[in-house]
Amino acid sequence: MEIKTAFKVFHYDTQLEWTHEREGELSSGDKPPLAVAPPPEFKGPGGLWTPEDMFVAAVDACTMTTFLAFAVKKQLSLVSYESSARGTLENVGGKFQFTQIEISPTVTVANPADVSRAEATLQDAEAHCLISNSIKATVHLKPTILVLQPESVEGN
Amino acid sequence: MEIKTAFKVFHYDTQLEWTHEREGELSSGDKPPLAVAPPPEFKGPGGLWTPEDMFVAAVDACTMTTFLAFAVKKQLSLVSYESSARGTLENVGGKFQFTQIEISPTVTVANPADVSRAEATLQDAEAHCLISNSIKATVHLKPTILVLQPESVEGN
Repeated sequence: MEIKTAFKVFHYDTQLEWTHEREGELSSGDKPPLAVAPPPEFKGPGGLWTPEDMFVAAVDACTMTTFLAFAVKKQLSLVSYESSARGTLENVGGKFQFTQIEISPTVTVANPADVSRAEATLQDAEAHCLISNSIKATVHLKPTILVLQPESVEGN
Repeated sequence: MEIKTAFKVFHYDTQLEWTHEREGELSSGDKPPLAVAPPPEFKGPGGLWTPEDMFVAAVDACTMTTFLAFAVKKQLSLVSYESSARGTLENVGGKFQFTQIEISPTVTVANPADVSRAEATLQDAEAHCLISNSIKATVHLKPTILVLQPESVEGN
């Protein structure tokens, strides 16, 4: 008798409607609609989210939400989390594709003893981010961990 | 002497800041900021764009913008373009990843002679969408091409 582990399968649905020129409007259930267009280098108007931005942002946001989930589990107390991400689009064999995504998160903790735990949690998040697992590009994590300096509560 | 073709390299930058609980705010240059959170099945609040949605939407939007670019080149006149996309997230070897993205575009043309051109242009767009080229998931295109029925301009 063979025993298999059953894993859940999830579906994510989005809708898109062309509005004018090269622009469209994305929607997904009751979420706020989002205008989308190509970047200026591909003849878009600029000032709107592009498929390229959304791809990079998805990796960045997934890294954060995975990190936050692990932080809750590990009872790691955070002061702040912010990050920037840069995706590199290159021509590979005649077609453009993203080859690298660099994620630079800055995590601030209150307790100096939490620095190494925060770093380990970021590594876990990088390894388990489901968007990173779904792309061909290499994801590089460049973390910065800060400790909140307690403010001086007394003057001189 | 070796002659190499030089291709441009492009970079796409996004920023992210944790706001509260599992939510954050994405930004990218002067584009409208976008709230992001995990989906309810991963303990998010619902009603906000998720990394999963953005990933699926990036493939859908890239397919449209690539199609529109080719349509301009081929002087293919369009009445409308709308599409829906569904991404399937599954556990593969112990980790979740997107295994399939189904894109269902509906393209309406005014001229019946343009139906086959529209279909061929969609196939070209699928083959050249740079987001599709950047992901591990299989992208399936399920196109519908419609011809706008001229309205009767007279009564009876």
